Formats: sequence, C-alpha cells, structure tokens
Amino acid sequence: MSQFWSDIIHKLTPYVPGEQPKLDNLVKLNTNENPYGPSPRVIAALKQEVADTLRLYPDPNSEALKAAIAHTHQLKPNQVFVGNGSDEVLAHVFQALLKHDLPLLFPDISYSFYPVYCRLYAIDFKTIALANDFTINISDYEQPNGGIIFPNPNAPTGIPLALERIEQLLKNNTQTVVVIDEAYVDFGTQSAVGLINQYPNLLVTHTLSKARSLAGLRVGYALGSPDLIEALTRVKDSFNSYPIDRLASAGAIAAMQDDDYFNKICGLVISTRTKLISDLEQLDFEVLPSGANFIFAKHQIKDGAELTAELRTRSIIVRHFKAPNRISPYLRITIGTDMQSELLIRALTEILG
Amino acid sequence: MSQFWSDIIHKLTPYVPGEQPKLDNLVKLNTNENPYGPSPRVIAALKQEVADTLRLYPDPNSEALKAAIAHTHQLKPNQVFVGNGSDEVLAHVFQALLKHDLPLLFPDISYSFYPVYCRLYAIDFKTIALANDFTINISDYEQPNGGIIFPNPNAPTGIPLALERIEQLLKNNTQTVVVIDEAYVDFGTQSAVGLINQYPNLLVTHTLSKARSLAGLRVGYALGSPDLIEALTRVKDSFNSYPIDRLASAGAIAAMQDDDYFNKICGLVISTRTKLISDLEQLDFEVLPSGANFIFAKHQIKDGAELTAELRTRSIIVRHFKAPNRISPYLRITIGTDMQSELLIRALTEILG
Repeated sequence: MSQFWSDIIHKLTPYVPGEQPKLDNLVKLNTNENPYGPSPRVIAALKQEVADTLRLYPDPNSEALKAAIAHTHQLKPNQVFVGNGSDEVLAHVFQALLKHDLPLLFPDISYSFYPVYCRLYAIDFKTIALANDFTINISDYEQPNGGIIFPNPNAPTGIPLALERIEQLLKNNTQTVVVIDEAYVDFGTQSAVGLINQYPNLLVTHTLSKARSLAGLRVGYALGSPDLIEALTRVKDSFNSYPIDRLASAGAIAAMQDDDYFNKICGLVISTRTKLISDLEQLDFEVLPSGANFIFAKHQIKDGAELTAELRTRSIIVRHFKAPNRISPYLRITIGTDMQSELLIRALTEILG
Repeated sequence: MSQFWSDIIHKLTPYVPGEQPKLDNLVKLNTNENPYGPSPRVIAALKQEVADTLRLYPDPNSEALKAAIAHTHQLKPNQVFVGNGSDEVLAHVFQALLKHDLPLLFPDISYSFYPVYCRLYAIDFKTIALANDFTINISDYEQPNGGIIFPNPNAPTGIPLALERIEQLLKNNTQTVVVIDEAYVDFGTQSAVGLINQYPNLLVTHTLSKARSLAGLRVGYALGSPDLIEALTRVKDSFNSYPIDRLASAGAIAAMQDDDYFNKICGLVISTRTKLISDLEQLDFEVLPSGANFIFAKHQIKDGAELTAELRTRSIIVRHFKAPNRISPYLRITIGTDMQSELLIRALTEILG
C-alpha cells in the first residue's frame, strides 16, 4: 500500500499464469503449449527478418498481418484487430466493449483472467453457474446484461459448445456484445467466425499461442464487425501504437499462411488426446469431453492437489485449480506428444498402484 | 458511435504516430529512429533464439532482461519494470501511478501521447506553459498536483533540463510521483537515474527504440523504487502476463550488454547533430539547443508546413506539428547519417534559394 499508487491498484488481484519452471527435462503439461514447434516457414521468415531494419518502427497498423488473418478466415482486413497475445486483445475488449451500466456475464468456471480485467477497468460483472455436467446453458444468459463472454471450448473444462447454441444466444441477445474466446477452437470445436457477417455484436478472439505453436511470440487477434474493431483500434491507439513488433508480425504472417502444417499438428494433438483419455479412463479417471488441447480429469478416489504434487516429484507438471470447490478434484492436463502421454500414464499407474 | 462501445471510447482522440511510409529510397527523418542498426551481438542473439522453443511461453516476469537492465544502471532487479515499448510502460504508469484527485501536471508542449493516456484512463490533467525560450521552469510546478511528468530532453523541442533542476523539483515535490521520460537521454542529456535511490517518488522511463536501435522490437522500461515498480507489475499482471516475447527479450538483453557499440553510435549521432545545426544556421534557421537525436528548427522566413511539404516532394520526410501555434513554424528533424544531413541541406538550399 502506497500513497503513490492510483486508487484502483490497491484493489487488484492479478492473474497468476501457469508456472514456467526453469528446470530442464520436465514433462511440462501445465500451460497448454503445443508440443510441436512452429512451422518451418515461420522459422525461415523470422530468420529473414532479423536484420538492420529492426532499427525502424513496425507498421503501427499491422496491415500485412491483418490481411493474412483476414484471408485465412475469409473476412475483410477491417474485421480484424491484432494484439500482443490474445490476453492483450481481451484487455482491450473489456475496456472498449464490455464496460456498461449492466453487468457483464460469464461462467463461474471459466478463464480466470476475466474477473481480473473487470477489476482493472472497474467493470461490473455477474458469474453464471455452469450446469452440473459443467456445460454452458445459454438460456441462463437470457437476462439484462452489459455483454457476455466465454471461451469455446470452455477453460479449464475443455467442453465445446455447439455452434447452433451460440447462434441461438446471438438471436436472443442482440443489444450487447457477445465475445466468444476461441483460444482452443482449432482442436475439434466448431468456430463461430462464420456467423460474424450476420451478427454485428459478435466478436471472436483467437491466439497464435496454441494451434499455431507461437506462445513465445505473443500474437492474438479479434474478429468482428468493423464497428467493434474500430472501438478496439481506438483503445490500442490510445495505449501503444505499435503493439506488434517486426519479428512477431513476420512470424505470425508465415504461421497464418501454412495451413498444411497447422492441420497436421492439430490432427496429431487430437489423436494423442483420444488415446490419453482412453488410457486415463482405464486408470479410473473421469474425463470431461474435450474440444481443446487439454483435458480436465478427476480420479474417482485420489484428490487433484495430491496427484499434482505426486506427479511433480516425478518431474511431470500439470495444472490444478484450488477454487472453486467444484473443480478442485480435477487436473488440467495439456495434450503433449504420445511419448509424454506414456510417461504420464506410467507415473499415474505407479502413484495409484 | 455505437451502442456496443463502452462510454469512454466515444471520447478518445488517439495518438497519431509519425508516418511509416511504404516508399523506398526515402530520407526518413520523421520518427527519431537511429540511422545505425542494432549491435551485431543483438543480431546474433536473435538468430539463436529463432527456434522450436517459440512454442513455449516466455518468462512472464522477464527476469533475465530485468537483471541486464538493472546491471546497466547499477540498480536492483526489483527497481526495474519492462514493457512492450516505452509507450506501453507509460500507459501502465498513467493508470497505476498518476490517477489521483488532483490534476497531473505536464508541459503544454511535450510528448503528445500524455493527454491521450489521460483520456483513456479518465485522469484529470493541467498543462503548464513552457517559458518563451521553450524551457521548463520547475518553479511553475510548485502547486498541488496528482503527479508530474515530462520528457528530458523534452519532445519535440529536444531541450535538456539540467540534473540539479530535476533534483530541486524532487525536493519541492515529495508527495506525488515525478516521472522523467528519458526516451532520448542518451544523446547528451544528464540522466536522473542516479537520483532513484534517494527519491522514492522518482520514476524514470527509458526505451530501446532510440539509442539501442531497436524500434522494431518494442522494448521499454521504467526504473524506480520497488514500491512504484510493484504498482506497475500489478497492472501488467492484470492486463497481459507476458508482454515481452522471447525474441524481444533475447535481443534487448544483448543490446543492454553491448555498451561499446551503444557509446559508439550515440557519439556518431551527436557529431552529425553538431554539424547539421551549424549548416542549418548558415541557411537562416534558428535551432533550439538539443540533447536528443532530433532537432527542432524554424526558418526565419519560410513556414514549417510549407517546408515539410516541399521536402517531401524531394523524398525527404521530416515531422511537422500544426498545434499549438507556438510550434507550427518548426520542423522536427531526426538526426540521420552525415550523408542524410547532406541531402537535407542540399534540398533546403534549393528550396530556399
């Protein structure tokens, strides 16, 4: 506490990201990174961009990157907003589009950064309980609101919501912005991007940190009507005119242009997931349905915190959330390679044996 | 205007950065970039970091980078905050440390992003007129305030303020934060960093975009007491946990570690500046004293807007600010290479002849 701090600072409870441990030889299944590196075309593009021109500012409007993203999604560049990771994009979304007199709605079990943004921007919010099976019931969102946001698939459950449910929500809720946070959509969940031209209040956010294997490069984006994008651009140009550096831009463009590689590694992750779920079920785990590159699983007997600690002594890192109580029995396990799955299953067999 | 926008968005007047023209073969003297590329050690470090590990998140706390910066400035890592360019650092500074009941004070002629941040965070501010010779008179800041910020050297004038005046200001003003924005300090202005251990309310901001030749990489930092740094960290962790990507971090560390190169190119810029000022004076320009990598100059007869336009037809880009009226006769000219100075002087000789 300090006389020098702005009032709001005293009230913040910052987001705590998953640990980035400095130990080598870990089986790191805690922050939903892709086990496969970026496309070789990304590596080549980055090497080329490491040059004297780094002395010059990047394009403040990231036009080439927006064009590449627009092309991938069959949208126009003025329907694209880019930022320094989808966390930055989301921060601007909260400030630009979700602060209204009525409360913002999001699920009680969801991306834990949402309430943090609300505190940062003094946004009133109300959480809506997931159903007992951890699914989102869209009729629960039929109430006065200043906006709606949730991830699809949801985090940390991994459960996908069908596209027709999202369209129903958009039909019910035309007066405020609906944000679908599709960070994990590429691992088998239906995207809502195809609805953007019909629903001017729909904003969809994506990241290059997961399916495009570029968590280390920090690029995310939002897709929506030009009117929504304009609000985000106004905030960005009042915050940091040049959020995307020259290397991030070059790497992200190459990543968006290599769909073959992208499809290949997403397929590998999905196939590893199928096998891992079946192996975990053999060990008496209950695994929620997943449309993500992670699964949410609880053992029928053994507690989540305890399992996490025991895996850690075997150099396997998974993520455990203490609160809310409903999810504390669960482990959130990133899908790695088949070999990493094997190491995990072997360790769990030992622990549970 | 849109029903979907948060209220604040309607009131924003975003910052307009200097143009990044897409034409080749320009003499680009408009955005204060360094004419010399980054250190060869930066290029080598970046090439090494372009690898499979880009699939992994960077260190959210940028500990290695903070250690390198702390070492350069003989401070401790908990006195360092890093961000995606000093514009992002400043944004967090405004939100975390400069929003109080009393108005923030800054010069009427200064970095034009300051009032933009104030509007973004609804911060009350009051501008203090520069003296007739465009200098900052610190006794003008002896009044109730919620904080004080100005660049040293000031922008866009380039005029440096002596260190003893800054220390006097800190002695007069102990109850609110004083931010000295030292983006251009390395080109011959005295830094206030040495005062940090004595004045817990002093925050100094730096960028790697100017003297370290990395505008394209987006890294900036703030130096101050651990108490001030903690406020910035709270905002950062409520906004974007990973603002510095893996490549930016590796390049910035290498840049901070190559003081020989840094001193050499700063020396070259200063020597080009001395020669350019003398040549401009020969052409009947009045040039303000500069401690920056740019100069602020007006011709005794010919108007600033007109000169800017005529230079542009000769592929030479300088910056002109229309408002306030007091500065509209001036050109802000980035110091380039000796060859670029020669091309500029040749063009001006033609235009004025």
